Amino acid sequence: MLTEKVLHMNTGNGDSSYASNSNLQGTGLQRSFPVLNEAINKIANDLNGFPRSFKIADLGCSSGPNTLFLVANIIDMVHDICSENNSQVPQFQVFLNDLFENDFNTVFRSLPAFYTKMREKKGDDCGSCFVYAVPGSFYGRLFPNESIHLFHSSYAVHWLSRVPQGLENNKLNIYMAKTSPTNVFKTYRKQFEKDFTKLLLLRSQEMISGGRMILTIPSRSVADPTSEDCCIIWELLAKSLVDMVKEGLVQESKINSFNIPYYTPYEDEVRDVIQQEGSFSLHSLNGFPLHWEPYNTDTNVSDLPVRGINTAKLIRAVIEPMMANHFGKSIMDLLFKKYQEHVVDHLATKKGVNYSLVISLVKH
Amino acid sequence: MLTEKVLHMNTGNGDSSYASNSNLQGTGLQRSFPVLNEAINKIANDLNGFPRSFKIADLGCSSGPNTLFLVANIIDMVHDICSENNSQVPQFQVFLNDLFENDFNTVFRSLPAFYTKMREKKGDDCGSCFVYAVPGSFYGRLFPNESIHLFHSSYAVHWLSRVPQGLENNKLNIYMAKTSPTNVFKTYRKQFEKDFTKLLLLRSQEMISGGRMILTIPSRSVADPTSEDCCIIWELLAKSLVDMVKEGLVQESKINSFNIPYYTPYEDEVRDVIQQEGSFSLHSLNGFPLHWEPYNTDTNVSDLPVRGINTAKLIRAVIEPMMANHFGKSIMDLLFKKYQEHVVDHLATKKGVNYSLVISLVKH
Repeated sequence: MLTEKVLHMNTGNGDSSYASNSNLQGTGLQRSFPVLNEAINKIANDLNGFPRSFKIADLGCSSGPNTLFLVANIIDMVHDICSENNSQVPQFQVFLNDLFENDFNTVFRSLPAFYTKMREKKGDDCGSCFVYAVPGSFYGRLFPNESIHLFHSSYAVHWLSRVPQGLENNKLNIYMAKTSPTNVFKTYRKQFEKDFTKLLLLRSQEMISGGRMILTIPSRSVADPTSEDCCIIWELLAKSLVDMVKEGLVQESKINSFNIPYYTPYEDEVRDVIQQEGSFSLHSLNGFPLHWEPYNTDTNVSDLPVRGINTAKLIRAVIEPMMANHFGKSIMDLLFKKYQEHVVDHLATKKGVNYSLVISLVKH
Repeated sequence: MLTEKVLHMNTGNGDSSYASNSNLQGTGLQRSFPVLNEAINKIANDLNGFPRSFKIADLGCSSGPNTLFLVANIIDMVHDICSENNSQVPQFQVFLNDLFENDFNTVFRSLPAFYTKMREKKGDDCGSCFVYAVPGSFYGRLFPNESIHLFHSSYAVHWLSRVPQGLENNKLNIYMAKTSPTNVFKTYRKQFEKDFTKLLLLRSQEMISGGRMILTIPSRSVADPTSEDCCIIWELLAKSLVDMVKEGLVQESKINSFNIPYYTPYEDEVRDVIQQEGSFSLHSLNGFPLHWEPYNTDTNVSDLPVRGINTAKLIRAVIEPMMANHFGKSIMDLLFKKYQEHVVDHLATKKGVNYSLVISLVKH
């Protein structure tokens, strides 16, 4: 499986699309805004005002309302700072990055309305916000040397560059799980360290001195990956696949050969890589819990079927292209029906919560 | 009709797509390469070598093999110059521009193979070619001030920003035609002058001093738009629509209210606008004839049916979204079947030839 070919969210804006099922990521994104705002303030401060053309890149922008919601908020933050300082608003170049298979067309179709709204809100000044697409892996170079002032990424850099090698004995698991052999945790962690190191190195080459990077990623709240529900989302999906093995609909060997190229680090693991790599100083690192259904945080058991549907849609929008590539498109409806049932069972006794980290970095 | 919403080539890479039916434009593009090469040489010369990051924008890049064919050729030209001068190859930032509805996804899917081929050919140096998409109208600002070194556009800037106002009496014509009233020619010309002036002004703001712009556009070989076959391609399409009026399949009023936002200028008209607008010097302007079927320039009458099919496909790939928006998708197959027959009739006695201009401009 070539990760770059199959790692993309569900396209378009239909019922199963990421665009229609990304409010978990939207909520996480909003949680990072105070940190983002602080970073933008610091850039203006450290560079003695904004550069004439403020260059911002969003890594793993995907396709949906969150993509331009971020851009609108960054522009708002800069306008506010300029208004406080009585300084001129810069021209914006916003580079939206994602893999080659990402549905950029859908993002572009929402741009005319976005520009119109910005102009209404900000006046003609905002004719000088230019939004571009940068297709390619963020584990490769994306920009010329020292050309970007602010990197941002929300729920993207936890995707690994590839499925780690050496997971043959992870058997009926598809990610780190309570029943995974020890080497599985080590192998995943090693791949994360390698990928995250590369990400930091490449971005530091592309960033001007004094530039900043804000990363929001799903994470574990404790060091031990077996001790809590860091990975329950994928354990329930593995369970659903195993159900289908029992029904003769999926071959066991297909599960044995499938693992998700994904990693939820503990915060110390993140700190270690940043320090080891050395291009960036860690300005701040904050963790927060994030409910699977951010708009529905009370655990009202009577709502369980609806909550199962919503969570299954959320996960399906993220992982379907990769699952369909490996297991076949035809079983997807049934697989996510079963998944929905497992989610309901889980939520009957436990909260559906993930943890996230917001990491604020500054280039030396 | 909002031009920006319906002006795009047929998407995807199927049988009716622009990607599969754009070798006429590809041939015209190749004819401009010597002029492009000269311009790139002059940039290197005038700027005392290439800038560290060479910023190139292609206006109206569309979606198909020509898009990246151009990029590959520009990179080749720069590599050759650097090799002759024994100087370092710059990093490339290539900005592909087209309207919001353009099929950028298809361009992006061909990028991995493009990058692989470039790396094989040029070595790892070419990891430093970055291709981006810039969605938006080139009649609006697309880039920050003084940020681009080379603008290029092939078969795009003859598309007007809108259907000119005041064409009510153009009746059963859909573009300038031999039977058009005089005001139609004036109205079209005026819109072209307005749009082309704006294009020059905006690009001059976005271009560094000493930057260059190469435009290739379809044109007329003589000043009088009634005196030759400048517009025959659209006259045959109008004829096909009129056939369908007679058969009760199209309402006459629908043709009366439709005109194509397109202009084929005579070279003096182009010179006049450039001089009037004043931001650029005209370095060179060359006209050349271009056969509708560039790979089949002999008029072998026995091939006529095939030539009719090919020409109809070529035109359909370009104009179908706009026609379907106005006349309805359901009549498209029949319309282009009739068009194919009119093309065959035309080619039985005449050559299928258009004229093109390659314009080389330098910013003061």
